[in-house]
Amino acid sequence: MPGKPQRVIILGGGFAGVYAASYLARHARRRADLEVILVNRENYFVFQPLLPEVVSGNIGILDTVSPIHRLIRGAQLYVRDVQSIDLVLKTIALSPGFQPRETILSYDHLVLALGTVTDFRGSPGLFEHAFPFKNLADALRLRNHLIHVLEEANITDDPQHRRELLTFVVAGGGFSGVEVAAEVNDFVRHACRHYRHILPSEVQVTLIHSGERVLERELSVRLGEYAQRILKRRGVELLLKSRLHSASPGCAVLTDGRRIATKTLVSTVPSSPHPLLETLDLPKQRGRILATASLLVEGSDHVWAAGDCALIPSPSDDQFAPPTAQHAVREAKTLAHNLVATIDRQPLRSFDFTGLGKMGALGSRCAVAELAGGFKLSGILAWFMWRSVYWWKLPGLDRKLRVGISWALDLLLPPDLVQLKMGASKGISQMYYPSGEEVIHQGDLGDALYIILSGAVEVVVARPGGEEIVGRMGAGEFFGELALLRQCPRTASVRCTEPTTLLAIPKSDFQALATSLPQLGQDVQRIASTRRIDTRQN
Amino acid sequence: MPGKPQRVIILGGGFAGVYAASYLARHARRRADLEVILVNRENYFVFQPLLPEVVSGNIGILDTVSPIHRLIRGAQLYVRDVQSIDLVLKTIALSPGFQPRETILSYDHLVLALGTVTDFRGSPGLFEHAFPFKNLADALRLRNHLIHVLEEANITDDPQHRRELLTFVVAGGGFSGVEVAAEVNDFVRHACRHYRHILPSEVQVTLIHSGERVLERELSVRLGEYAQRILKRRGVELLLKSRLHSASPGCAVLTDGRRIATKTLVSTVPSSPHPLLETLDLPKQRGRILATASLLVEGSDHVWAAGDCALIPSPSDDQFAPPTAQHAVREAKTLAHNLVATIDRQPLRSFDFTGLGKMGALGSRCAVAELAGGFKLSGILAWFMWRSVYWWKLPGLDRKLRVGISWALDLLLPPDLVQLKMGASKGISQMYYPSGEEVIHQGDLGDALYIILSGAVEVVVARPGGEEIVGRMGAGEFFGELALLRQCPRTASVRCTEPTTLLAIPKSDFQALATSLPQLGQDVQRIASTRRIDTRQN
Repeated sequence: MPGKPQRVIILGGGFAGVYAASYLARHARRRADLEVILVNRENYFVFQPLLPEVVSGNIGILDTVSPIHRLIRGAQLYVRDVQSIDLVLKTIALSPGFQPRETILSYDHLVLALGTVTDFRGSPGLFEHAFPFKNLADALRLRNHLIHVLEEANITDDPQHRRELLTFVVAGGGFSGVEVAAEVNDFVRHACRHYRHILPSEVQVTLIHSGERVLERELSVRLGEYAQRILKRRGVELLLKSRLHSASPGCAVLTDGRRIATKTLVSTVPSSPHPLLETLDLPKQRGRILATASLLVEGSDHVWAAGDCALIPSPSDDQFAPPTAQHAVREAKTLAHNLVATIDRQPLRSFDFTGLGKMGALGSRCAVAELAGGFKLSGILAWFMWRSVYWWKLPGLDRKLRVGISWALDLLLPPDLVQLKMGASKGISQMYYPSGEEVIHQGDLGDALYIILSGAVEVVVARPGGEEIVGRMGAGEFFGELALLRQCPRTASVRCTEPTTLLAIPKSDFQALATSLPQLGQDVQRIASTRRIDTRQN
Repeated sequence: MPGKPQRVIILGGGFAGVYAASYLARHARRRADLEVILVNRENYFVFQPLLPEVVSGNIGILDTVSPIHRLIRGAQLYVRDVQSIDLVLKTIALSPGFQPRETILSYDHLVLALGTVTDFRGSPGLFEHAFPFKNLADALRLRNHLIHVLEEANITDDPQHRRELLTFVVAGGGFSGVEVAAEVNDFVRHACRHYRHILPSEVQVTLIHSGERVLERELSVRLGEYAQRILKRRGVELLLKSRLHSASPGCAVLTDGRRIATKTLVSTVPSSPHPLLETLDLPKQRGRILATASLLVEGSDHVWAAGDCALIPSPSDDQFAPPTAQHAVREAKTLAHNLVATIDRQPLRSFDFTGLGKMGALGSRCAVAELAGGFKLSGILAWFMWRSVYWWKLPGLDRKLRVGISWALDLLLPPDLVQLKMGASKGISQMYYPSGEEVIHQGDLGDALYIILSGAVEVVVARPGGEEIVGRMGAGEFFGELALLRQCPRTASVRCTEPTTLLAIPKSDFQALATSLPQLGQDVQRIASTRRIDTRQN
């Protein structure tokens, strides 16, 4: 009785989603009653463990990623965002493609493998001014930015500006933060030798961690301390028991009020389950979905969950399985088996993987590892194991070949200091400044108009004999229009008197809007003209 | 008498600029009285001849580019745009870096090697909707776009939309256009085999050329016809004696009125000298700077010019040296020699290079070549020569190694269909539609508000029993706000009744502006409410 095939939709293209799709696709290639669809924002799968190496350029830009099509042959890939999920109607809605139309897909089985997202809520300015480090675009953006600040430092004399350009701050002392800090440190210290006007001693790399020791949750005391010694010896400054409070375009602000002037802040800390999960009426704990050992969502017979967005009982203790790649892959395997078993009305298996150990890289030729039997390893031996294991785990022979060649070339060739600008103009964007920071500086070029969303600023004019405060502004008011309207340098400085959120409208956008919406242009002009008189009267 | 060193500033990082800087840097490394500065927008040099191969992925993304620092050791690189040149004060002003401040540099000798820019003026909509093909970012953007349309075609049923997704149009039948068309054709036809729901027969690649034969200016009749046969055999449709008139988001419009529905239009045709040159009071012809055989600008003793922005007398006839890489490199060499000779008060040399021949690739394993002695070559032999010559000319051993390995891997491995999204949100942008095209479609999602800059549109509502025109709008008016304000699908379609230029404000930008500038939000709301009544009355 060949009926309609059972359609499985998998949401998310991380380890859990892609491996689940891959295992299920093997079944789908053999049987006509199973249709598998994977939905992911990108058409490639990122091999996360090697992502930090993209920053340092040890491996090529595309070496860490694999086209998903090739990994899930027999399944269908939708390269779209998921807009919404309707658990009652059993449908999902996808974001538009080239045409502004929604795509609705119905499912018989749904697999939630949406992972976590970088979540900067609660830390003002981080979303706007910090670099997240989660996917390939993040890694590339960070690498390009690092080269950009080196280029600028190489031609800048102003010592204060040089300091913020050559200071690099990474927040988060877990594996991700430690690996990024190590790679950034390696890269910048290595690269700056190729710039004539940058002294290695000017480079400062700082790792901020809230705990007493880096990797304290991940590794034993001995290995954690070893990692710290290595980082310090290589020039990474550790700020322990410190927490990032907020970020502005020019500095990182700690909770104790300290400010570090920097143009490069990478934050690896806050990650939370995908926001889409919040909308779903499913059993959850701290935002993550509660699943059974068979990978079904608790209380459901057709909604499944795996990977970092799910809480799955660990077979070894009464905790949950940790959010690592090795667990996600095994969860995906059990899930695929059980899903097919459900269709075939066969008994289900329980997830029973206890983990093989933990590893983290510390930059060039050094790593730490703690294996399942309590076996500990550090230094070049751990690094060799780290590379071997991940190289072996890379999906596909072609990736293995490419990464192998890149590693070999990296030993032979100088670093590829190419800054790849993709012409991403910033457009209208939000900005955050802590109290006391300057938004615009008298005499600078006018490049944007600012609208105050919250907070307060004062307008300061430098005069012979000291500066004078000529005005104050608050939420709903705007500034910076004079330099745009009159094509002249900034006539005053503007400084925040409390933490302030702004909407910055770049010059080109403002001019396009003011020309096409004359009313807006006239309003701004009118306010500007009153303001000019105010300034004189003050 | 060690005085201030003579400062040479070179503008432009193409073949002429980088090679001039490289030759001059060799002198600067040996003598303290010479300072060399190169100004370029990017910190890398693009080896143009191999750029089309980036599209097909035959070589890695960064294989065609070399970090400039490494090519000009001894000289200083400024990665900035040139804002203005003051020939009287002998200064140049650079665009701002991280800080909104101008950088002013003074020079003793100025080398203009700014090349040409893609110039879409005169062809409405090309700037907004066509892909230029000039630098690395263009090549990457095109490659990512090609993968994007394939992904979308793979999941789209609508036959009309499939057709525009799977139609690829290249305008320009010179070397650049032919090579891009060949690579696009190779890539798409090869890649579509990896997509389950795309038939090779659905793919259409069209080359538009104004002449009677492609490469008619570059090659002899026989080779040009050979190139045409190869292109046709591989599936490229040739539209000869045709010219591109304009472009909209969904089609290419020819001067004879024909329209080709496509989401991919690459234009390699119009290039004009760098706009900065227009501002300079120097002898010019059709925008290019007139230089002498010694590479000095006519009438000057300290301003030099080389490469595509200059007109240099050809030693072989009474024409000018053609704008090719081989000429630019030799011009740079003569220029560097003469500049140093000027400082040393030695006699100058004359540029006397007559060219080695011409070559063009036609996609996988096929090329055409015409050498200086009249020797002609085509097919795989020409292709082998083409690869050998350019491989040999690649600057630096590391590039040679990388490109060699990429070519070898390309023979072994499947194509890397990774779509690299760099998260460039579009922001406020201009759009062009020819008469009769639909801007928004009733029932679609509302994703933007449109302001009419020029032209006229009609608002059409589909009713049972046919469509009804409910309104007309012209320059200065806006539409599309209802769907944004009420978060509902488009309530009507809007169609252009004449060629129309629009400013599109994306939903997110509009919402940010309307919230922070309540006056703007209220104005739009007020107009929207009157309009709703109008619509009902109609």
